[in-house]
Amino acid sequence: MTRVIAAALAAWMIPLVGVAQETDTEKTAAHDVLRKMADLEHSLDVPGLVSRLTAANPQRDAVVARTKELLDTELLAMADDIATHPEIGFEEKRSVGKISTYLKQHGFDVEMGVANLPTAFVAKYHGNSGAPNLGVIVEYDALRGTDGPFHGDQHSAQGPVGLAAAVAISEFLTKTHTPGSVTVFGTPGEEMMPPEAKAEMHTAHAFDGMDVIVRSHSSAQTSRPAPGFGTCCMNIDGVKYTFSGAPAHQLTSWNGRNALEAVIHLFNNIDAVRSSIRPEARIQGIITEGGAAPNVTPDRAQADFYIRYPDEVYLAQVTDFVDNAARAAALATGTKVKIDHYGHDRDGISEATLAELSFAYMKKYGGTNVTPAPGKPQGFEETGTVSRDIPGIGVSSQSSNAPNHTYEMNEDNLKEVGHHGFTVDAQTMASILFDFATDAPYRAAVRKEFDGIKGLFAEYRTALEKTYTVPVVRDPK
Amino acid sequence: MTRVIAAALAAWMIPLVGVAQETDTEKTAAHDVLRKMADLEHSLDVPGLVSRLTAANPQRDAVVARTKELLDTELLAMADDIATHPEIGFEEKRSVGKISTYLKQHGFDVEMGVANLPTAFVAKYHGNSGAPNLGVIVEYDALRGTDGPFHGDQHSAQGPVGLAAAVAISEFLTKTHTPGSVTVFGTPGEEMMPPEAKAEMHTAHAFDGMDVIVRSHSSAQTSRPAPGFGTCCMNIDGVKYTFSGAPAHQLTSWNGRNALEAVIHLFNNIDAVRSSIRPEARIQGIITEGGAAPNVTPDRAQADFYIRYPDEVYLAQVTDFVDNAARAAALATGTKVKIDHYGHDRDGISEATLAELSFAYMKKYGGTNVTPAPGKPQGFEETGTVSRDIPGIGVSSQSSNAPNHTYEMNEDNLKEVGHHGFTVDAQTMASILFDFATDAPYRAAVRKEFDGIKGLFAEYRTALEKTYTVPVVRDPK
Amino acid sequence: MTRVIAAALAAWMIPLVGVAQETDTEKTAAHDVLRKMADLEHSLDVPGLVSRLTAANPQRDAVVARTKELLDTELLAMADDIATHPEIGFEEKRSVGKISTYLKQHGFDVEMGVANLPTAFVAKYHGNSGAPNLGVIVEYDALRGTDGPFHGDQHSAQGPVGLAAAVAISEFLTKTHTPGSVTVFGTPGEEMMPPEAKAEMHTAHAFDGMDVIVRSHSSAQTSRPAPGFGTCCMNIDGVKYTFSGAPAHQLTSWNGRNALEAVIHLFNNIDAVRSSIRPEARIQGIITEGGAAPNVTPDRAQADFYIRYPDEVYLAQVTDFVDNAARAAALATGTKVKIDHYGHDRDGISEATLAELSFAYMKKYGGTNVTPAPGKPQGFEETGTVSRDIPGIGVSSQSSNAPNHTYEMNEDNLKEVGHHGFTVDAQTMASILFDFATDAPYRAAVRKEFDGIKGLFAEYRTALEKTYTVPVVRDPK
Amino acid sequence: MTRVIAAALAAWMIPLVGVAQETDTEKTAAHDVLRKMADLEHSLDVPGLVSRLTAANPQRDAVVARTKELLDTELLAMADDIATHPEIGFEEKRSVGKISTYLKQHGFDVEMGVANLPTAFVAKYHGNSGAPNLGVIVEYDALRGTDGPFHGDQHSAQGPVGLAAAVAISEFLTKTHTPGSVTVFGTPGEEMMPPEAKAEMHTAHAFDGMDVIVRSHSSAQTSRPAPGFGTCCMNIDGVKYTFSGAPAHQLTSWNGRNALEAVIHLFNNIDAVRSSIRPEARIQGIITEGGAAPNVTPDRAQADFYIRYPDEVYLAQVTDFVDNAARAAALATGTKVKIDHYGHDRDGISEATLAELSFAYMKKYGGTNVTPAPGKPQGFEETGTVSRDIPGIGVSSQSSNAPNHTYEMNEDNLKEVGHHGFTVDAQTMASILFDFATDAPYRAAVRKEFDGIKGLFAEYRTALEKTYTVPVVRDPK
Repeated sequence: MTRVIAAALAAWMIPLVGVAQETDTEKTAAHDVLRKMADLEHSLDVPGLVSRLTAANPQRDAVVARTKELLDTELLAMADDIATHPEIGFEEKRSVGKISTYLKQHGFDVEMGVANLPTAFVAKYHGNSGAPNLGVIVEYDALRGTDGPFHGDQHSAQGPVGLAAAVAISEFLTKTHTPGSVTVFGTPGEEMMPPEAKAEMHTAHAFDGMDVIVRSHSSAQTSRPAPGFGTCCMNIDGVKYTFSGAPAHQLTSWNGRNALEAVIHLFNNIDAVRSSIRPEARIQGIITEGGAAPNVTPDRAQADFYIRYPDEVYLAQVTDFVDNAARAAALATGTKVKIDHYGHDRDGISEATLAELSFAYMKKYGGTNVTPAPGKPQGFEETGTVSRDIPGIGVSSQSSNAPNHTYEMNEDNLKEVGHHGFTVDAQTMASILFDFATDAPYRAAVRKEFDGIKGLFAEYRTALEKTYTVPVVRDPK
Repeated sequence: MTRVIAAALAAWMIPLVGVAQETDTEKTAAHDVLRKMADLEHSLDVPGLVSRLTAANPQRDAVVARTKELLDTELLAMADDIATHPEIGFEEKRSVGKISTYLKQHGFDVEMGVANLPTAFVAKYHGNSGAPNLGVIVEYDALRGTDGPFHGDQHSAQGPVGLAAAVAISEFLTKTHTPGSVTVFGTPGEEMMPPEAKAEMHTAHAFDGMDVIVRSHSSAQTSRPAPGFGTCCMNIDGVKYTFSGAPAHQLTSWNGRNALEAVIHLFNNIDAVRSSIRPEARIQGIITEGGAAPNVTPDRAQADFYIRYPDEVYLAQVTDFVDNAARAAALATGTKVKIDHYGHDRDGISEATLAELSFAYMKKYGGTNVTPAPGKPQGFEETGTVSRDIPGIGVSSQSSNAPNHTYEMNEDNLKEVGHHGFTVDAQTMASILFDFATDAPYRAAVRKEFDGIKGLFAEYRTALEKTYTVPVVRDPK
Repeated sequence: MTRVIAAALAAWMIPLVGVAQETDTEKTAAHDVLRKMADLEHSLDVPGLVSRLTAANPQRDAVVARTKELLDTELLAMADDIATHPEIGFEEKRSVGKISTYLKQHGFDVEMGVANLPTAFVAKYHGNSGAPNLGVIVEYDALRGTDGPFHGDQHSAQGPVGLAAAVAISEFLTKTHTPGSVTVFGTPGEEMMPPEAKAEMHTAHAFDGMDVIVRSHSSAQTSRPAPGFGTCCMNIDGVKYTFSGAPAHQLTSWNGRNALEAVIHLFNNIDAVRSSIRPEARIQGIITEGGAAPNVTPDRAQADFYIRYPDEVYLAQVTDFVDNAARAAALATGTKVKIDHYGHDRDGISEATLAELSFAYMKKYGGTNVTPAPGKPQGFEETGTVSRDIPGIGVSSQSSNAPNHTYEMNEDNLKEVGHHGFTVDAQTMASILFDFATDAPYRAAVRKEFDGIKGLFAEYRTALEKTYTVPVVRDPK
Repeated sequence: MTRVIAAALAAWMIPLVGVAQETDTEKTAAHDVLRKMADLEHSLDVPGLVSRLTAANPQRDAVVARTKELLDTELLAMADDIATHPEIGFEEKRSVGKISTYLKQHGFDVEMGVANLPTAFVAKYHGNSGAPNLGVIVEYDALRGTDGPFHGDQHSAQGPVGLAAAVAISEFLTKTHTPGSVTVFGTPGEEMMPPEAKAEMHTAHAFDGMDVIVRSHSSAQTSRPAPGFGTCCMNIDGVKYTFSGAPAHQLTSWNGRNALEAVIHLFNNIDAVRSSIRPEARIQGIITEGGAAPNVTPDRAQADFYIRYPDEVYLAQVTDFVDNAARAAALATGTKVKIDHYGHDRDGISEATLAELSFAYMKKYGGTNVTPAPGKPQGFEETGTVSRDIPGIGVSSQSSNAPNHTYEMNEDNLKEVGHHGFTVDAQTMASILFDFATDAPYRAAVRKEFDGIKGLFAEYRTALEKTYTVPVVRDPK
């Protein structure tokens, strides 16, 4: 037996902060890119920028005060109301009604049904006057619980929080004749797919022209991401496989073709290649249709899969394996398969110019349970689709004492920890939008960072393409 | 390569009529039993018996006339009414309400909720006076269609037809002081299991004490079974397999145990032994629960199987294979399984003394589309449970121009072909009950035949037990 | 639940003798063909023909005596010698050496290595003079036993028996100036494939021009087949599936592609469709190469299958299923597959004109343990390839007290039961060849029957093609 | 979708050198243990120790010179001879003959056939006088290549190298009346299992009483392991699964039980739980027996697996999964299985007191291609069994320009790079044994370090036991 010298040691010894690269292969591929990114960040002097922007500024303070006033008088009550009337994704009619009515009452023109999604909207302030274009994303769908819908991820507050910041900054721009436009995006069904609402809306050009987008999200910590590209939970492909066969009575099953056997062999085929796929992949499925009656050969069956890998380049190979597993299952069973790639979550882009400013404001406005080190890079929305094209930040101060997706976080919606966190988020969002609208050098720095990271991201993907070669299989003799 | 002389030829050359033995193995095992059965039938002189009973008889004609009168005045209308208000199994509240109300109005005491089945009943005529005990089974559940329930198997008419015969014979017994008792059995949900209503009721002793049972069933022919033991569609075990695992997030699936993988391997394990099981077996399943969301390791999953074999002796071995497939799936996946044997359809017993008399009366009363040769032996109800203990006959004259379980047969419920067939069935049932109540030698012949066949059936099963040995597997070296 | 009237009864009641149709579907498809075949046989008056030919004939008796003399003086000793020096298929060098030397010594020109098979030969008598062309097939390969080769199927005697008949009839033709030619075919490896020796030789035109072929085969009975088309043991496709992948160390198996997983999924895919294939099919395989070491991802693996069905038309569908199972396994595992259809056993044709004559002569010369009824139709060789083009008969009198392929049958090679049976076979073969060479009406009858059955066989296959439609699978929605 | 803060960051930021813990879970479990180990190493002042021992020492230099002389005059020639006469594991009769003859010629008593292994031996110097007990392990088996055996891992030189050091130190001890004993262990078949020669010999108490063991191994670098416990290539269980079924002809396969299907389902069952097992596991198998002929149901089949995990605690759970996969396969197919755990490679223990001294001597004697940082901890032999009980060092200077297990490394056996490396190894081994025999404080330090690491290893395993809980599966409802 031979000895292997631990060749991977070098990579381990670099003290990294919040890196996106999860595997040794990725770390090796990212080596040059990460060095260039360090250079980029160094050139921006983000600490100096943040220090300058967060200094005393009465105009900003007025906007922040107006934000708080809107929450205290009406919007925290709206958050409580939505929290106690939870609606699941794509059925948030009551919730979106509250939000859109408020926007209309405060000078916004609301277009409902964007991208053919009935509860999606785009709301533009009627006083909008040119660039910079400031965007605010709000969500409102509840989680599906075994006892019915509940707001265990606090999307109930995202609308009111976003509205407070959007209305306050809109009023400021109009009042001060500062050039700039404010758009609020209502994005439904974040917790469900298909469809992926933000990806659909982006494809329908709903976000086109935005210069920056802010959003709030519940959390048990006050934190921010490191700059770069990444995602919390791997790149994901959501795919449905629908098989059709031919029905037959059980007694003469050879007159049929069994679609359930095809689904079963889809799973078997995937299991067969698990050790031919890098171990960081996560492939898991459920059977959503498994036949109607045991005495009739199932002529239709369906499975739903989430396919995950740390990066999107190798993910494509993994998804090919799963698609081929389905095609092979159809071929072997004499059935037909329809493959529906319904969802694509990808690495997003985060910028230190926005993240560190957000972090400073959150601390300034009283954000609690502060995490000192930046987390893994990730975009301001979960699909990665929008944040690759538009700079932005997901503001995230502590709004609960419990982890996300819990009944306890739902209860914190109505408590002081929730209301305080929502207020900090709204104030922070208003401040960032204020700085972006009023400070041209800051806008330039954000743009420079975003463009730089976007370029490096492309470079990284090219490096990965070279890394992940497919093994050569010779013809059998 | 060696040559094989076709040893199975002998069995083929015996000209058999409506035999139950479907495989060469069964035919060989049944060799002696079938010879003894031929002797038994010869000793009974059924043609002579039928000829004597169907001769002119004014008393019987009066009962038959009364039967027709009841149908014409009220019961065919009830059949139409139930046909147009279809209710699926175990939900036949309206239908059973109509039937039980009628029975009460005609002197029957009705006990609802027999065997813990809310829509099952036993109705005894208040004038009952000792043996012989005459039973009438009636059903009333509709089929499940994609457009809702419908009476494509004409169970809608079984209640009215049975009531006409039961009331007419009850009135006759009372009026003429003929000893005898009449009981009507309301058996729900024939088209569904679990539960198997008749088996449950029999276990709860509902049918105890009956000397004969008659029942009507829709058909596109006027026909009768051969005497013996058998079933239309193989002996069946219905089994549900429920697996439990442990849930986990997809990203850390090793913290869970996947119940869906267990169900999938239940199917795989069955497929693996298909060629180790005699080819006449039919094993087919569906997946009734296949996981909730692709990003959560399924901690619960379920499959539902019908397992069939021509005889119940080898069926037990087949079901053992399937149960072991489930246990093996649990063992391999670290999950647990619950096995629920919810249904058991078995060979029933049919008697020529009843079947040939039924056939003669059906022809006498105008039964159409007559099938000359007797069909395969089978009991008067589908589970085989009751007909093994109590002699009886399922009366079956043409009541439709379409096959069973069709929308066309449903339409015939309201047409002349339906009404005529229902009337023939009711008249035939009333005549058989009349003969059974009034003719002691006939009762003795039925009993002799039933006891004889029952004994031969036990002998056959013993022969099969000897035939189906399990292969010896030695310890691996 | 609906009732099924036993529709298959009609077919059962026809008293059939040695029919080839094993399934109800086949019997239905063969209905017209079998009637026409009965007419054909009736028109030939085979009993009259046999009675005329087997009457007293001094010339024939002399040929038969000469046959026996050759056996007694030399050829039974050669049979004993080959029996005690067994050689497996395609390695029968010593055995074929003995046989070819004898043939050369008795006036035959021997061509070895026919069809690229080193131990195959064609030997033509130097006195040959035109038609009719009489062929004799001889085999000489031993069985593979766990203790080495052995002649448990008595191919050891086929050479000597065939030589005795061939030499005796050749001498007769020459001496009497009777027109006709004699050819002996040495066909190796009957017990092994690939390759299929007789099919390869036939493809290479080795048998072209023969008018009749005779052959002897060991048996525990004296019997003959019915006329028609058929085979002892179903139509067979022999197929090898060889998969290639890419090797990798176990620790980084994702750098490889696993050919063994492909073979495993070939089996799984077949198991998955067993209930989508008619139950008379028999599909069984072994794994002939399953990887080299557990710490190296197997980059090559192989399986060998026998696929059987009673008729060749549906067999093609079954083999398609298996081939697709292999293609699907390759697709799912990222490997490649080579499919080698190496063997094809098919229904052969047997003629009553030859079989009944053979049966009469065997009884005349003292054949023991006589089976009165004719067996299933089958050709005179196991592949069915040659017997579809050339009429012939496999002569088969009792030459052992034990079943084929046993050590007991091997022992009988050297005993009286063996020697007696071999002598009866040789005498019968010589008599048939004598009649064929000297009796033009007989030759015409054989030809008429052969052509008739061949035409009906084609008709039958056409009927089956119409019967076995493939289920329609719609596109999934 | 919720956000995950990269909790694993802390562990990444500790700059580690040659750690054995490969997973985050292991790193967390090892946290305290690694701190204590750092304290232990600090307390030993290994650099000071090494510096003192490697200082000028004429006695040691004489031993080293004698070592070189033995190589130059005879033993390098023996290495060349064994290299050119390669013999695979357990068949190394010629090679072990050369070695044992030499030992006998130089005053050793050789006991062959130790632990029932014909080519294993224990050789004790006849001048041995008490403690310390110095052991030398030598190997001599060649690799299996597609073109026959070859010495691509240079075991050919291990005997001669070990003999040079052993004879030189033995002569020194005797000559100088230094207390101490020398034992040479001949351990066959390192490249094969089963059996695991060193584990078998250890179980048979062959190594009992040794105070230190040295061994040489080929390498393309001059390197040494870090102190601690570990292994190059994960902990390994080697397991064979043999299934027995019942044979049957393919045409009646239900009379058999298919052992090949059982093996196939062993693989399937493993594949089914791959995502229920931590992703660092490596489970790979081959099929060593896959049936004899496609027309006979396989009644015997066998698979051979290597099961690997970075630590032995979770490995036990993984092996349970695989064993249950086999039991489940037998249960489902009606076959029986024999499970043979034939091999167990485990973490070994390495000591800096030996490793750093070895590294210093190798450099002193001209070791080339030096790797500065220590590698992963690992024992001096591949099973981990011996090195857990007895301190020791595998000496490894550059002896080839090619990686292990290559034809190029085989060629280097006869070249300067080989001969030079072998000489450096032998000189280093002689020096270590000299220091160990003559320097009591050094012996004490080695012992202290070994005992300390052994205790910490037990502590680590206990911590892992607490970490790896098995998920709770509730009873299905």
